[in-house]
Amino acid sequence: MKLGIVGGGQLGRMLAIAGVPLGLECQFLDPNPQAPAGAIAPLNVSAFTDQRALRALARSSAVIGFDWENVSVEALRKATRGSGARIAPPLRALATGQDRLLEKRLFERLRIPTTRHAAVNSRAALWRAAAAIGLPGVLKTRRLGYDGKGQAVIRKHADLDAAWQSLGGVPLLYEEFVPFDLEVSGLGVRARDGTVALYPLVRNWHDEGILRLSMAPWQAPALERQARRHVRAVLREFNYVGVLAVEFFVRNGRLIANELAPRVHNSGHWSIEGAVTSQFENHVRAMAGLPLGSVASTGHSAMINLIGQVPPAAQLLQVPGLHLHDYGKSSRPGRKVGHCTIIASSAAERDRRTRSLLRALHLRLKQVP
Amino acid sequence: MKLGIVGGGQLGRMLAIAGVPLGLECQFLDPNPQAPAGAIAPLNVSAFTDQRALRALARSSAVIGFDWENVSVEALRKATRGSGARIAPPLRALATGQDRLLEKRLFERLRIPTTRHAAVNSRAALWRAAAAIGLPGVLKTRRLGYDGKGQAVIRKHADLDAAWQSLGGVPLLYEEFVPFDLEVSGLGVRARDGTVALYPLVRNWHDEGILRLSMAPWQAPALERQARRHVRAVLREFNYVGVLAVEFFVRNGRLIANELAPRVHNSGHWSIEGAVTSQFENHVRAMAGLPLGSVASTGHSAMINLIGQVPPAAQLLQVPGLHLHDYGKSSRPGRKVGHCTIIASSAAERDRRTRSLLRALHLRLKQVP
Repeated sequence: MKLGIVGGGQLGRMLAIAGVPLGLECQFLDPNPQAPAGAIAPLNVSAFTDQRALRALARSSAVIGFDWENVSVEALRKATRGSGARIAPPLRALATGQDRLLEKRLFERLRIPTTRHAAVNSRAALWRAAAAIGLPGVLKTRRLGYDGKGQAVIRKHADLDAAWQSLGGVPLLYEEFVPFDLEVSGLGVRARDGTVALYPLVRNWHDEGILRLSMAPWQAPALERQARRHVRAVLREFNYVGVLAVEFFVRNGRLIANELAPRVHNSGHWSIEGAVTSQFENHVRAMAGLPLGSVASTGHSAMINLIGQVPPAAQLLQVPGLHLHDYGKSSRPGRKVGHCTIIASSAAERDRRTRSLLRALHLRLKQVP
Repeated sequence: MKLGIVGGGQLGRMLAIAGVPLGLECQFLDPNPQAPAGAIAPLNVSAFTDQRALRALARSSAVIGFDWENVSVEALRKATRGSGARIAPPLRALATGQDRLLEKRLFERLRIPTTRHAAVNSRAALWRAAAAIGLPGVLKTRRLGYDGKGQAVIRKHADLDAAWQSLGGVPLLYEEFVPFDLEVSGLGVRARDGTVALYPLVRNWHDEGILRLSMAPWQAPALERQARRHVRAVLREFNYVGVLAVEFFVRNGRLIANELAPRVHNSGHWSIEGAVTSQFENHVRAMAGLPLGSVASTGHSAMINLIGQVPPAAQLLQVPGLHLHDYGKSSRPGRKVGHCTIIASSAAERDRRTRSLLRALHLRLKQVP
């Protein structure tokens, strides 16, 4: 069976690898001729909005999906119409994941606690929002933000104009700044027949807006119960098919939903070696209408993103239990070019190895156990 | 780094998948345009002896390897000369793995118990061998035998002429027939720097000459000690680089070496999900001069070959803890078209699930626990 994926980044590449043993052939559409998925699967180099290319993908695929959010919902809807191809995950989830305001409204509708916020479309609206919600706050573009891009933290009234000048002109959202205790994410997968499986809770560490470290399973039963309830509610709401992630802040033992991703997620990469069935395999299984595999963890995992450039493999692979994932991307400051996962048979051993690897990578993060 | 692999079967395909996350790009040479590795990696469709194609592969690869034994050692040696490409595993091991008589001589030289045998090049020599070694026995072609092909069991003198007629004309080997209690295999890997790692002992079940089932780790400490010693001796003898397998018969608690494979081996497929580092990953790591990964098992594994055709994925994936590997080959009776691996947290649970799957596949094997 052929799966057509719009976007051929590292997520697409890992979906393709997961599909091969199941007889599921991924094919990609991406404007970048060097897109990582192209190294192992057919890649049609076209703009994401190219109707001819999208229609060709839809006609030659049983199911159409995407490996990132910034894909045109309208272009996809139009291209798949009458093609016979299913779409998974559903476009309604994609549209919500693209727009921070729709995300917040979804969370509110499902009674999932989230940050106080206001839509901002003018300089005056920004001042009103800051007055109503208070300072400090964060001004974000509603669309096209990722890895901390398209955001400005506002600590005092004097920052408001600078923030407006750097981001204004597109629809914005002003949110309260949450002085969180920690960050976690919940990942779930839903099959075409409605079966749901929820991965163990993940704790995340960001630095300069970019995910640096994830640990799973993160043993925090009360938080995990909340995360499971929330992720399950989102999956049900969309009649979802595939993997979905929700990122949460944790403050005083309560989860506050930050954003959702209607796709496999960086905080789930540990599952390739650390779970019975990886998020990538379960995503393609769900797309193809196959039964889901177990999401149980097989050990204690830490996933560390490699940012900018991949250190020499010969050096990384000396760390016991380390698995390397080089995305085959060229080096560039701030770019996610790979990740590595450490698996250990106890949390203490995982933590020890993780600290040692973080030191070797000159990466300082707070509160790493 | 580019690895050139002569032969693009399922072993090559799984090597390629293992290489991708490490930034190791496999490229293949195979006369079959539908060779399984071609689905995910560049495939040069040429005869195995095509000097031009072999030289092109050698010139564009840092290391040259092979995914089966029936490759011309001379053609490979000639093609790589002056190309700058290393060869791993070494050609001396390949030459030995191609010839049952050289294998036996190696085992004898290393004091590894093996079957009594005699080279047979004429009808008269066959009668002499049967008289010296006794009946029953097995007549085998020295070269090009696999999956039970190129063999004839001789139970009585009257079978000798028929066996000669079916196999005569090429160099043969007559061996004693070993009424073994069980079959096991030992898999080891040796890095370029001489580091050796030995996978847990595997028990194998064949049917009509084809491997059907492997279980690992097979808990038999006395047998495992012997297997480790023997595999280590072979790796050292060849100054080996990569994964190597030795198949043994077991009789009265003693190992009797049957044959060796200078490559990843069907009885090691369980390691993809059942070991910290799979045989495929360790093989490409060794080829690339990288450190080896741990070969420890992560659970209790059973690998079942899918012969002839792959049952519907939707059916197989309903078995808890089952991982499917569809090689993307067309169906044909007796052909290995895929395998599946069951992982469980206890041997008893693995055994229970294995029996259930064997029943579903209508496969009857003796002595399955």
